Amino acid sequence: MCNRYATAIRFLNEVADDYPHAISLAAGQPTSQFWEQMDTATILDAVSTYQRHRPKGNDLLQYGPTAGIIGDLVAEHLRIDEGIHAAADRVLITAGCQEALHLSISSLCETSGDVLLALNPTYAGAVGAARACGVDVCSIPGSTPNLPEAIREACTALHAEGRRAKALYLIPTFDNPTGRTLGIEERMAVLDVCAELRIIILEDNPYGMFRYEGEPVPAMAALDSDGCVIYLSTFSKTLAPTLRVGAIALPERLLGDGAAHRNLQDKLLSRKSLISINTSQLSQAIVGGILLKQQYTLRRWIEPALNWYNINRDTMLEHLDAHLSSCSRYVNWNRPAGGFFLTVNLPFRFDTKTALACAAQHGVIAMPMSFFSSDDSQDKALRLSFSHANPQQIADGIRGLASYIERHMEEAA
Amino acid sequence: MCNRYATAIRFLNEVADDYPHAISLAAGQPTSQFWEQMDTATILDAVSTYQRHRPKGNDLLQYGPTAGIIGDLVAEHLRIDEGIHAAADRVLITAGCQEALHLSISSLCETSGDVLLALNPTYAGAVGAARACGVDVCSIPGSTPNLPEAIREACTALHAEGRRAKALYLIPTFDNPTGRTLGIEERMAVLDVCAELRIIILEDNPYGMFRYEGEPVPAMAALDSDGCVIYLSTFSKTLAPTLRVGAIALPERLLGDGAAHRNLQDKLLSRKSLISINTSQLSQAIVGGILLKQQYTLRRWIEPALNWYNINRDTMLEHLDAHLSSCSRYVNWNRPAGGFFLTVNLPFRFDTKTALACAAQHGVIAMPMSFFSSDDSQDKALRLSFSHANPQQIADGIRGLASYIERHMEEAA
Repeated sequence: MCNRYATAIRFLNEVADDYPHAISLAAGQPTSQFWEQMDTATILDAVSTYQRHRPKGNDLLQYGPTAGIIGDLVAEHLRIDEGIHAAADRVLITAGCQEALHLSISSLCETSGDVLLALNPTYAGAVGAARACGVDVCSIPGSTPNLPEAIREACTALHAEGRRAKALYLIPTFDNPTGRTLGIEERMAVLDVCAELRIIILEDNPYGMFRYEGEPVPAMAALDSDGCVIYLSTFSKTLAPTLRVGAIALPERLLGDGAAHRNLQDKLLSRKSLISINTSQLSQAIVGGILLKQQYTLRRWIEPALNWYNINRDTMLEHLDAHLSSCSRYVNWNRPAGGFFLTVNLPFRFDTKTALACAAQHGVIAMPMSFFSSDDSQDKALRLSFSHANPQQIADGIRGLASYIERHMEEAA
Repeated sequence: MCNRYATAIRFLNEVADDYPHAISLAAGQPTSQFWEQMDTATILDAVSTYQRHRPKGNDLLQYGPTAGIIGDLVAEHLRIDEGIHAAADRVLITAGCQEALHLSISSLCETSGDVLLALNPTYAGAVGAARACGVDVCSIPGSTPNLPEAIREACTALHAEGRRAKALYLIPTFDNPTGRTLGIEERMAVLDVCAELRIIILEDNPYGMFRYEGEPVPAMAALDSDGCVIYLSTFSKTLAPTLRVGAIALPERLLGDGAAHRNLQDKLLSRKSLISINTSQLSQAIVGGILLKQQYTLRRWIEPALNWYNINRDTMLEHLDAHLSSCSRYVNWNRPAGGFFLTVNLPFRFDTKTALACAAQHGVIAMPMSFFSSDDSQDKALRLSFSHANPQQIADGIRGLASYIERHMEEAA
């Protein structure tokens, strides 16, 4: 099962072990540069802030409610920072967003023949979670010029096979792995077709807060008037991955049905109780306390990291321009306005073997895009991450990558 | 799916909400009486102890390895406190023991027709996890005088249906819900039959450290010479539930095959990465630091709680004797040497309705044993917990329960 994801993780671990001096532009974790603001004093202060806010609250060291204890605070954060009309009783706190994904997919696609739609390429953890739950995934080419039409076609094709698209997994803002963002018109059109075809959109938005330029595009959950978006939230990128706190925010009327969200919520809670019982109350109190201290908005909190990512992205684009514009006929890349990733398209196959050669000979680790794909359509692309390396490493890494690409093309010529 | 478990949790929540003044002998969480030893200073000290031990360790706020970072420390703890020959590279740290269960069951029972054996009654979270993974559960009467023979018969019956018992879920020491403990001869015989029939035993042992009298019976994993026991560990009862830290310890040679454990480990890791990515490194550091400070044994740490549980159990048994021995022809109960629970057998049905009546009229909440059962065999029993209430509450609660039972029998007479 879920071989790609396991392969990707193994690749990241092994290549880092085998080439400890190579610069990694592969791993997509958040920077730890500014975690001094998440020091011991801050954590303790957050916990006591939360406790003062909930003087009658339950013991934070004990088990707790399956739905969590900070649904109201997270709802307020989603309202302020993402413009989403979330409500406490429709927010389920999860052990990180990966659990949110697992729960949502397994609860929405319960019947044999229920299928998850996903773009190709997409976050391997979503496809893997579906497979682990025994749910088939139907891929839609991410490069399609007309996503709503492609969704409709996929549904028709599934219907002809006696199957049914129940959900669509999307990272509409600063996608992992591509860096792509859907425009507002495209969002509206996707919402319309999903409402019509009764497909739930699982909007995963780990990178939405990290915009470096241009006007924000509203979250799909904020645009949703038909109750077809389930919003998946995480504090791994805004605060810290170690918290393992994420959330599922359900629409008020799931596909227009006021009772349906309750039914789904019961399923989600029942499944969560069987996977993790409840999310650590101490972790929840840390998140809750920080949200209270920050008056529910994390904009100010993430500012140092955001500036850092911005500089990193600029550095990466600058060095791609400097070193690879000479072969721009063969090599191209996108210029995301935010997030952690961008895509480089190559004129040749870039797989584990070539990635290892690149690490060994040119000292830079890049992620084959094929790790995020179910077919060979992504074989000539790679994902670069600018979230974790520093500017100097990014500059050196892109120089290394460029020399690798040039060498490879010379040899092929 | 998994209705019983959801029903049980709902029962606990609703009855506590509806009868806030009733004494709960239903909930089985650990006592919070002695959590001052888990205060802020101790937590911080644990984290820095861990960090001093791993000066080159990775950033605790970051993502981390799927298998966790304290496998070696937990292995040493299992060796010292449980006599289990665990090794760091065969220990997988999980987000609580519930995740360990979910991962183990789904990884061992991957093929249609693979069945989990479990006693009836048993911990509802194990049966629920199996169902959530689409795995059928075959129940073995917990009252069977010959467990090994019952396992053999169940296997034969499954085989005749073209199905196969792949794993047996057991809490052999101070069982939840019954309080029962398997003797050493029975353990050896169960190990023999499981080795012969190639059934993996999932030994869940949350209560083993809490023995109040008598000689310890070795964990089945400690007796296992055939590699048929996977040991599931948790720190929820010894330290605190909020940590959400548990572990899976694999045998060195799974059913005698040295390569098999690696194969299973890959499956477990792959599935874990899709459910929770990794267990909170901060929580792991707290557990790791406490293990280091305590020189790997939690015996001293749990002593205050253990004494408290012991007094609670004595109080419960004393009051059962005092108030119910007059109807001992109809009502009986066991006298567990440890753990959190005991069983009371009644001459009448005890279900949600009667439990609510008992709470309303006699001010005590008891857990219908039927919540832990797949059939009607447990309809005339209830589970009492002596872990969370205090001695006075236990005394009052048993008095209330006795008056309820007497009233009920008078009315029936």
